[in-house]
Amino acid sequence: MDLNRIKDPTFLKKCSKKELEDLGEEIRHFLIEKLSVTGGHLGPNLGVVELTLVLHQLFESPKDKFLWDVGHQAYVHKILTGRADQFDQLRQYKGLCGFPKRSESEHDVWETGHSSTSLSAAMGMAVARDIKGTDENIVAIIGDGALTGGMALEALNHIGHEQKDLIVVLNDNEMSIAPNVGALHNVLGRLRTAGKYQKAKEELEMLIKRIPAFGGRLASTAERVKDSLKYLLVSGMFFEEMGFTYLGPVDGHDLDDLTTNMKYAKKTKGPVLIHVITKKGKGYAPAENDAKGTWHGLGPYKMESGEVVKKPGPPSYSGIFAETLKKIARDDKRVVALTAAMPGGTKLDLFAKEFPDRMFDVGIAEQHATTMAAGLATQGLKPVFAVYSTFLQRGYDQVVHDVCRQNLNVFFAIDRSGLVGADGETHQGVFDISYLRHVPNMKILMPKDENELQHMIYTAVNYDDGPIAVRYPRGNGYGIKMDDTLKQLPLGKWEVLKNGNDATILTFGTMIPVAMEAAEVLEKDGVRVEVVNARSIKPLDEEMLTQLALQNKPILTLEESALQGGFGSAVLEYFHENQFHSMVVERMGIPDRFIEHGSVTKLLEEIGLTSQHVIQRMDQILPRKRQRA
Amino acid sequence: MDLNRIKDPTFLKKCSKKELEDLGEEIRHFLIEKLSVTGGHLGPNLGVVELTLVLHQLFESPKDKFLWDVGHQAYVHKILTGRADQFDQLRQYKGLCGFPKRSESEHDVWETGHSSTSLSAAMGMAVARDIKGTDENIVAIIGDGALTGGMALEALNHIGHEQKDLIVVLNDNEMSIAPNVGALHNVLGRLRTAGKYQKAKEELEMLIKRIPAFGGRLASTAERVKDSLKYLLVSGMFFEEMGFTYLGPVDGHDLDDLTTNMKYAKKTKGPVLIHVITKKGKGYAPAENDAKGTWHGLGPYKMESGEVVKKPGPPSYSGIFAETLKKIARDDKRVVALTAAMPGGTKLDLFAKEFPDRMFDVGIAEQHATTMAAGLATQGLKPVFAVYSTFLQRGYDQVVHDVCRQNLNVFFAIDRSGLVGADGETHQGVFDISYLRHVPNMKILMPKDENELQHMIYTAVNYDDGPIAVRYPRGNGYGIKMDDTLKQLPLGKWEVLKNGNDATILTFGTMIPVAMEAAEVLEKDGVRVEVVNARSIKPLDEEMLTQLALQNKPILTLEESALQGGFGSAVLEYFHENQFHSMVVERMGIPDRFIEHGSVTKLLEEIGLTSQHVIQRMDQILPRKRQRA
Repeated sequence: MDLNRIKDPTFLKKCSKKELEDLGEEIRHFLIEKLSVTGGHLGPNLGVVELTLVLHQLFESPKDKFLWDVGHQAYVHKILTGRADQFDQLRQYKGLCGFPKRSESEHDVWETGHSSTSLSAAMGMAVARDIKGTDENIVAIIGDGALTGGMALEALNHIGHEQKDLIVVLNDNEMSIAPNVGALHNVLGRLRTAGKYQKAKEELEMLIKRIPAFGGRLASTAERVKDSLKYLLVSGMFFEEMGFTYLGPVDGHDLDDLTTNMKYAKKTKGPVLIHVITKKGKGYAPAENDAKGTWHGLGPYKMESGEVVKKPGPPSYSGIFAETLKKIARDDKRVVALTAAMPGGTKLDLFAKEFPDRMFDVGIAEQHATTMAAGLATQGLKPVFAVYSTFLQRGYDQVVHDVCRQNLNVFFAIDRSGLVGADGETHQGVFDISYLRHVPNMKILMPKDENELQHMIYTAVNYDDGPIAVRYPRGNGYGIKMDDTLKQLPLGKWEVLKNGNDATILTFGTMIPVAMEAAEVLEKDGVRVEVVNARSIKPLDEEMLTQLALQNKPILTLEESALQGGFGSAVLEYFHENQFHSMVVERMGIPDRFIEHGSVTKLLEEIGLTSQHVIQRMDQILPRKRQRA
Repeated sequence: MDLNRIKDPTFLKKCSKKELEDLGEEIRHFLIEKLSVTGGHLGPNLGVVELTLVLHQLFESPKDKFLWDVGHQAYVHKILTGRADQFDQLRQYKGLCGFPKRSESEHDVWETGHSSTSLSAAMGMAVARDIKGTDENIVAIIGDGALTGGMALEALNHIGHEQKDLIVVLNDNEMSIAPNVGALHNVLGRLRTAGKYQKAKEELEMLIKRIPAFGGRLASTAERVKDSLKYLLVSGMFFEEMGFTYLGPVDGHDLDDLTTNMKYAKKTKGPVLIHVITKKGKGYAPAENDAKGTWHGLGPYKMESGEVVKKPGPPSYSGIFAETLKKIARDDKRVVALTAAMPGGTKLDLFAKEFPDRMFDVGIAEQHATTMAAGLATQGLKPVFAVYSTFLQRGYDQVVHDVCRQNLNVFFAIDRSGLVGADGETHQGVFDISYLRHVPNMKILMPKDENELQHMIYTAVNYDDGPIAVRYPRGNGYGIKMDDTLKQLPLGKWEVLKNGNDATILTFGTMIPVAMEAAEVLEKDGVRVEVVNARSIKPLDEEMLTQLALQNKPILTLEESALQGGFGSAVLEYFHENQFHSMVVERMGIPDRFIEHGSVTKLLEEIGLTSQHVIQRMDQILPRKRQRA
């Protein structure tokens, strides 16, 4: 069938097994073809084709609610709910979002991006249903990786306690983004190899009820005997102990197996966990045989060969980070690296190759990683937690309460700072300055290029007066020459990149080229703008700020970061704290709204962070001085 | 013995059982007596007397590390490590801290206050030990309540996986602060009633090894049979499945039982969980028979009768919140209240009495509570999450990603905003403005008194354009008359409380009386200061700010909240965004450091937030105008 003609999933009700199978094949082909051009999360979606078909056949979306945890596996759901025709614009500016999006479709009832949120939201929806007295089904689909996130475990605990009707589909592919870690993973491993005993369990429970001794005074013993027998016959005691009915393991690519178990789940009262085993990349050999996690999410590739289209270019900031840390760790035995399920993204996998005993992947657990780092620091080690800006939000309280309050030497390597592009508003790294700057004892740096990054990493490892964060952007460096010798940079010292007497732009990181370009253009018109690499965001360079204040020339702060409470605000705070009340300070940065997906270039244009915008703003500050042709 | 003469715990090595018992009695008497004057966390400490004695007898602190989760149960540890003589100043300004404090003693190796952090820190210390090749023991003592916190579960998962040597003492008193909730609690409940089978377990494992069929091709079946038998005989399969050796349940008030099991734990390789059953308030009848959780932490009481000394006064802000919400909920069926293990502190227990099906205590799980609220809001209900300012830090990412990004109608009732006093730096509610103000879509209000609070609650419940936070302080209102009819306040509208043409103080909440007092004094000297109730912190009253800018009189912002990224910064941002570059704006608030414990009055004095300080600052702003005698 023509997938573009699907308007909603009701047609599935009448589909035979054969028709579903054929549809599954078409969807696979469609995804492999479309994503070869746009890129996207291929592996996760190929893994849930049958699961999504069965869900939409047996339930009635949007009345019944599907919550896709993390959400990058919702492409099949998007196709079945009438959005196939938008896949050419997948993850592009104003195009189809790579995650569930409420504004896109009534079938997207819950937006995700960060992991482990679906169970809590499902619990909220189940409570709402029962208060309102309606009867919809609530189905959360969560991966085995997302289950290691603390909030998912908090939710399991509460759901098991409240015994609301809801279904958790555990989509177990033995991987999250990287191969999964944790004791829970071992529990799942044991289950995977165990048999299916749903019927045996029921028979056993009937039997037990009939034994007279299992009552009265012997109840407690009987209970243990019963549980013990269940343990012998039934898988999933871990979840049963948490108050769930456990179903599975189910073959996630077998329509019959899925259908039988899902029907059973639908009629079961109380919370049900249905354990579905899927294969990431199912049906496309390159993605199935993916040892390195390349096919989890990627850019364009050649469909026939599975060859990934490589953009040639300089090393990435993540790569420079990992290589530099390796170099330092050879001499400095205190260095220990941590990641929360992102060994590939942060490039700490490179570090782990050389130092397997000094790198810890803790699972999707930013809270634990942050406080474990604090624990390491109390013992004189130098923990380096490499984490995306957006994911460190999960560890905010631990940053405040455990790391900064105790003033411990933890180094936060904040990757993907600033706009990240195609992943969109759930992943933009635009809040970290605002959520870290007000925390006492924290220091924040950002390099102007990859060479400065390596020096900052060296600086941060050797900083022994409390926590320090070095933030760097997604993507590649500029390919500039790297110094051979690492050096320590002084904190609170900025660098003048270009002289000028008419005005000053204080900026850092990715906005430096924008400022430089604007300054060059303005110079041609006789306006001389000083450009400063304000690489130390906290502390500020107070000496330079005082000098600037005494010169009293207009200042523009420019940052790829939230304006509220950001770097520009820090500059305002400094001037007013020091009674420089009459400074002309203009601030440019990310406005007070969430920034959707699209290429970073497009987004910067939309929000007004290009050299053209800088020139316009300068025109406003220096209207009479500037002489344009 | 004279507890004041204890310098360190080494003397315990030689103590007989009888001597330990006597010492325990003395410590109990000491605590009951001292705390009757100072107040403090009596119940938790009476519960861990024997446990702490045994720990300090069998281990060698500070070489061996004790991590006290939450930390309010560390008084006995403080006595045994030479701090008995400081108990007269417990929780007072510059006095003994109510929590472990590294600067107080080398025996305090990890500071706590917020819950569920100890396991992650212990893991960090265990890794550090193994990297350094030392051999100290790491012991985390965590309550059954704290175990429901997501980060503790993240840590369990990682510890079980890594199999490092460390001991988790699960101090199970069936209560956290309130009676405990959650499926995990039920797991513990089953364990409590089960027998002790450590020996049986070992014999069983020996036996299984000898059975030839349990190997080779039958290994998988054998494994299940083995596990099943273990399940019959051995408690704690939940923890065993997570990779821990489970010991217990142990009677936490029986020195022999504790000693035997702790010795066993000490020699066991890999992670051990020792399940200790204790009684909160043990040995003091009023605290033992404490249904309402009064004796968890309290002020002074009469030692003989156990009568709590009541400070007469007007209703607390928490009480007004709960009563108002009840009133509203009678008509507005959408209202659902949530707490994370603080039904008493937030007074939502009052709400639950009338609406048991519309109040949810989710356990120590702020992340889950926040996102569950978001889930409720997607279905048109009106969730109200009542949470202390300091604890909402745990839900920061969920506030950003789930609530604000989806612009859902969640009402955050932020209790204990501002300084909280005796609980000290882990509990001060001084960051919420800074960590919420930069989040798009969020609105933030704070009332000037309890009457305004009730209107703000009504306003927040009826606000249907996204998330809204109403913050209010710890403690009592002023006892002013409450309006009979609730009304909606417009957002972004401030209120002039006192007219004046020389300068303006923009302030809110607890700082209003301070500003008013300063203005009165200044008035006597002929300086007329306007005082504005800036009750809408986000959005600001832009109309009023524009007027003020046009009048161009000096402005002082005054807040009991962090200066970095706070309300004053918002005012600066507004002026500069609107090209009012020459405004004299001075900001007063909490400086960029953590504020220790002490009475709020003392603390405000120390950090310079009294009317006297306001007057001094005004003298600087208006030096020539002011005519003082």
